[in-house]
Amino acid sequence: MDEWEDYRLVARHGKPGFEGNLDARPVRVGGVTFGGPDPVVIAGPCAVESREQTLAIARAVKDAGADCLRGGAYKPRTSPYDFQGLAEEGLRILAEAREETGLPVVTEVMDPRLVPLVASVADMLQIGSRSMQNFPLLMEVGKTRKPVLLKRGMCANLEEWLCAAEYVALGGNLDVVLCERGVRSSWAAEYARNTLDLNVLIPTRQRTILPVIADPSHSTGDAQLVPWAARAAVAAGAQGLIIEVIGEETSVDGVLCDGFQSVRPSVLRRIVEEVRGSAVPTA
Amino acid sequence: MDEWEDYRLVARHGKPGFEGNLDARPVRVGGVTFGGPDPVVIAGPCAVESREQTLAIARAVKDAGADCLRGGAYKPRTSPYDFQGLAEEGLRILAEAREETGLPVVTEVMDPRLVPLVASVADMLQIGSRSMQNFPLLMEVGKTRKPVLLKRGMCANLEEWLCAAEYVALGGNLDVVLCERGVRSSWAAEYARNTLDLNVLIPTRQRTILPVIADPSHSTGDAQLVPWAARAAVAAGAQGLIIEVIGEETSVDGVLCDGFQSVRPSVLRRIVEEVRGSAVPTA
Amino acid sequence: MDEWEDYRLVARHGKPGFEGNLDARPVRVGGVTFGGPDPVVIAGPCAVESREQTLAIARAVKDAGADCLRGGAYKPRTSPYDFQGLAEEGLRILAEAREETGLPVVTEVMDPRLVPLVASVADMLQIGSRSMQNFPLLMEVGKTRKPVLLKRGMCANLEEWLCAAEYVALGGNLDVVLCERGVRSSWAAEYARNTLDLNVLIPTRQRTILPVIADPSHSTGDAQLVPWAARAAVAAGAQGLIIEVIGEETSVDGVLCDGFQSVRPSVLRRIVEEVRGSAVPTA
Amino acid sequence: MDEWEDYRLVARHGKPGFEGNLDARPVRVGGVTFGGPDPVVIAGPCAVESREQTLAIARAVKDAGADCLRGGAYKPRTSPYDFQGLAEEGLRILAEAREETGLPVVTEVMDPRLVPLVASVADMLQIGSRSMQNFPLLMEVGKTRKPVLLKRGMCANLEEWLCAAEYVALGGNLDVVLCERGVRSSWAAEYARNTLDLNVLIPTRQRTILPVIADPSHSTGDAQLVPWAARAAVAAGAQGLIIEVIGEETSVDGVLCDGFQSVRPSVLRRIVEEVRGSAVPTA
Repeated sequence: MDEWEDYRLVARHGKPGFEGNLDARPVRVGGVTFGGPDPVVIAGPCAVESREQTLAIARAVKDAGADCLRGGAYKPRTSPYDFQGLAEEGLRILAEAREETGLPVVTEVMDPRLVPLVASVADMLQIGSRSMQNFPLLMEVGKTRKPVLLKRGMCANLEEWLCAAEYVALGGNLDVVLCERGVRSSWAAEYARNTLDLNVLIPTRQRTILPVIADPSHSTGDAQLVPWAARAAVAAGAQGLIIEVIGEETSVDGVLCDGFQSVRPSVLRRIVEEVRGSAVPTA
Repeated sequence: MDEWEDYRLVARHGKPGFEGNLDARPVRVGGVTFGGPDPVVIAGPCAVESREQTLAIARAVKDAGADCLRGGAYKPRTSPYDFQGLAEEGLRILAEAREETGLPVVTEVMDPRLVPLVASVADMLQIGSRSMQNFPLLMEVGKTRKPVLLKRGMCANLEEWLCAAEYVALGGNLDVVLCERGVRSSWAAEYARNTLDLNVLIPTRQRTILPVIADPSHSTGDAQLVPWAARAAVAAGAQGLIIEVIGEETSVDGVLCDGFQSVRPSVLRRIVEEVRGSAVPTA
Repeated sequence: MDEWEDYRLVARHGKPGFEGNLDARPVRVGGVTFGGPDPVVIAGPCAVESREQTLAIARAVKDAGADCLRGGAYKPRTSPYDFQGLAEEGLRILAEAREETGLPVVTEVMDPRLVPLVASVADMLQIGSRSMQNFPLLMEVGKTRKPVLLKRGMCANLEEWLCAAEYVALGGNLDVVLCERGVRSSWAAEYARNTLDLNVLIPTRQRTILPVIADPSHSTGDAQLVPWAARAAVAAGAQGLIIEVIGEETSVDGVLCDGFQSVRPSVLRRIVEEVRGSAVPTA
Repeated sequence: MDEWEDYRLVARHGKPGFEGNLDARPVRVGGVTFGGPDPVVIAGPCAVESREQTLAIARAVKDAGADCLRGGAYKPRTSPYDFQGLAEEGLRILAEAREETGLPVVTEVMDPRLVPLVASVADMLQIGSRSMQNFPLLMEVGKTRKPVLLKRGMCANLEEWLCAAEYVALGGNLDVVLCERGVRSSWAAEYARNTLDLNVLIPTRQRTILPVIADPSHSTGDAQLVPWAARAAVAAGAQGLIIEVIGEETSVDGVLCDGFQSVRPSVLRRIVEEVRGSAVPTA
C-alpha cells in the first residue's frame, strides 16, 4: 500500500485537476475562502475573558483587516488550576462579536460531547495541537458540516497529521484547513516557545488538497517575533495565518492566557498589509 | 507559585511520611499492589483480536508470572483504515479472560463517553500517550473509582505529565500509576521506535507519590530489545512494567497490531524472573 | 554573570550605536558586504569535483547574480569511503574560478593545521556544522585576518553558537558571519533533511552584532524546497543566503555530493531577484 | 551498498566468530580488558585541577574498585572564559597519578596537533562528543597505537557513530571503545542534562565488534541520578562505565567543572559493587 492510501480522501494523488500543481480545494468559512489567491488572516484573543475584552479586540482586528475572529471559550491548559475558559458564556460572547463585526468565528472544541454545542456557534471548529490524535473528537467533528482547523501535534510527523485529517474527512467533512504551529525542540528553549517548521508547508501542499496555514504566535511565543514569523510563513507557502491579539493598551500581565505572544492591533495591521502585498505563489 | 503547586494533590511535597524518601502511595488493582516492594508486571496482547487469541495469551502470561492482563478493545491508530479494536466485544473477551485467569484487566479508554462502559469491565483504565493531555477524558476517569494507568505523552515534559495526573486526582481519584513509554527522537529512528527515557524515573518519584512503571515494548518497538529495556527500567527505578505479548507460535505478521515488538511467553517468563530477583531500591 | 558576558566581544550589549536596534557590524569579503542593506548570496557547487565543473558553475552563478562563490575542497563526510574533496587541487581550481569571475571564494576548513593553506586562497573561511565546537580550529581561524562563516551546529542552542563565535573573536578576528543551516529533528525525516529554524534569526540579531545568513540547501535537502526556504529566510531576518548549485543540464546522480539539494542556475537567478526585491527590515 | 559497508572494518557482519552473537573484540588498556566478561569502570575528576586534587581522587577511585582513571587536561568548554584545563601540566599530573595507583589513564584530546603529546602519556585517548565527527582528529588518533574511547555525538545517529569509528580503524587502529553519553532532547531540560539513550546499546553491539560503555555522569548531569543510570546502563548491555568523581568532602561549588554531576568515592564504591555483582549477558 502506498502511504497516500492512508489518507486517500485528502490526498492530492488521484484528484483530477490537482495533480502536478499546488492548488488547494478551497474551504469557505462565511464569506472567507481558505486556499484561494489571498492569504487568510484569523486574529483575536487567546481566550475569551470577558464581553468587553472580546468585543474590543474583535473590532480592532476587523479594523486591522483580519478576515476571521479567533478566541477560546474552552481552553486546554497544562495545569488544572489555570483559567479554563468561560465555556458557554464564552460562546455567547463570540456570537455577539460576530454579529457586531461580521467576522466568522473560529473557536476550539476539545470534548466530543460538546461538538454540537460549539458547532451551533462557531463558523469553524478548531482542533488544538493536543487533540490532533484525539480520534473520537476527530470523528465527531467529521459528522458536522462545519469547516475544521486542524492544528499539527507538537511532535507529529506529516503522515500522522494527514491521517488525522482523514479521520475528519471519513465522516463526510472534507472542509479541513491544516495549521502548522511549531514543533517542540530542545535548542529553541532559550529564545522561542517552539520551532516554527516552515519546511513542512510545501511538502504538505504536495501531498494534500487541503489548504495549510501557520500560527506565528504559538510557534514563537514572543510578540516581537510574530511579524517576522508571519511574513516568513507566507513566503514559505502558508495560505493564511492565525494570530493572537491583545488590546492596544492592555498590560501583558493583565491577561489570563498567552499575553507575551499576543501582538497589538497596530502590529496586526502591518502584518496584514505585508502579507496581502506579497503574492502567494501557487506553483 | 512553586511548580509543585500545579500538581499539589499528587506532589510528594508536603505529604507527611513521603518527604525525603522515594516511597509511593500504593495503588491497588485487584490483589495487585503498585508501588509496593515488588515490581508489578502487566502483560498481554497489543489488541484483543479474538476470544481464542486473548484467552490463550492470558493463560500464557499468567503461567509466566505476570500480575495483570493488558489488551486493547479500543485502539488509537494513526490511520483510520487500520484495525480499530473489537470495542464492546473486546471488553467481553477481556472479562472472560479475567474470570479464567484471575488476572486484573488493564485496558485503554479514549473517549470520555465510553468511560462508564469501559470502567464496568476494566480493573484499571489506561490513558494512552496520545490522550495524556485529553483533559475532558482525564476529568471523566477522575470521576470513577477505578485505578488509572497514565502513559506519558510522546514529547511531554515532566511537569505536563504530573499536571495531567492532577486533572485525574482533582476528580477525587488519586489512584494513578504513571508509565514512561519512550519519547520521540530523531536519532533513534534507525534502531528503535522511540527513546526510552529512564532518566525521568527518579525525578518523577522525587516529585510525586504516584508509582511509576515503564513500557519496554513501545519504547523499543523491537522484541529483541524488550528484555534489555525491561531489566534496565527496573534498575533505573521503575516500579513495574507493561509488556506486549504474542502467542508462542504465532507469526509476527499474523497479528493486527505491533507484532514486531511483542515478546513470546517464554521470554516474558525470563523477564519476570529477572526483575523479581532484583531488589528494587526505594531510596 | 550575565549570559552575554560569555560572548562579550560579539554581544550587542554594551556596543555604542548597536543597542536598541538590529544593525550588524558589517563584514567585508572582497567587495561584498555582509550585514549591509542588501542580502548577500553565496552560491556554488557542494564540492569542487573538477576544473570544468567548477568553472562552469562559477560563471553560471555569477550570471545569476550571486555575490560570492562557494565550493568545498575539503569535505566532511559521514563515511570515510565517500569522496573527501580534491584538497589542494580544489583550492587551485577555486582560485582560478575567482580570477575568472571576480567572485570572492568561500570554502571550508576542517583541520587547524590547514588553516594557513586554506586561508592563502579563500576570501572567507567556512566552519561547518560539525566543527562549530572544534575549539582548536576556532582559535586558529581567529588568528587569521580572513572573514569566517560560522555554521550553527546540528543541535546547538543559541548561547553555544555565540560562544563559538567568541572563540574566533578572542583571537582578534571579529569578522564572523553566522549561518543557520537547519537543526536535526525527528518529525522532518520524511519530507526534509533538517528543520530550518527561522525563529533563531531575530533572537540572534538581538544578542549579537554579527551578521547572520541562512542555508536553504542543507536545511531542506530538497532542491524543490530551496526557493521557498530562501524567500522565507530573508523574510524572517536573514541577511544573506548560501545555496548549493548544480549545472543546468547535469544529472543529479552524476555529482559526488548533495545533488538532490542543489538548484539549477536558472532557479538561483529567480531566488536572487526575489530576495533583492524584498526590503530586508533592520528594525 | 549495504549500510555496514560504510563501517566495514568495525562491523560485526562478515567477521568469523562474531556473527550471530554479541561478543566484542576485546580492547586492552594496560591490564584492563574492555569487552570481556566484567564491566569496566573508568572514574576520576572531570578536570585535572591540581596535583593534590587529582592524586587524592585517583587514590580514592582505586580504593573504590575502579579499573581506570579519567581526568581532563584539555577541556572543551562552551565559553572561552571558562577553565580550559591545565594542558601539559595536567598530563604530568595524570602520569604521576598512574604511577602511584597503577590505574591506566584515559584523557581527552581535541587537537590533531596534540595527539602525539597526549598519546605519550595517556593509556587511552578520549574523543569527546563535540569531536565525534572531527575527521582530521579521528584520522590522527587512528595513526597511533593507543586505544580510543569514542563518545557519541550529542545528536548523532548510530550509523554516524560507527562511521566515525571507521575513520579511526582505517588508520590501522581497531582498538576503539564506544561510549553512549546521552543525547540532547527538549523534554529532559527540567530534570536531567541529557537523555541517556540505553536503547542504542544492543543495536550497537549487533552491528559492531567494538565494545560499548556508558557515561551516567554526562547523561544525567545530576549526582543523585548517577547510581540509577549506572545500574540501568549495565542492565541494558553496557560493557563498562565512565563516571565523574569529586572528593569525599569537597564542596560541589568548589570545583571548576561539572561538580553537580560528580559522585563521591563512597557512592562510586557502591556502584562498582553493584555492577560487578550483576552478570553482564552476552547473548
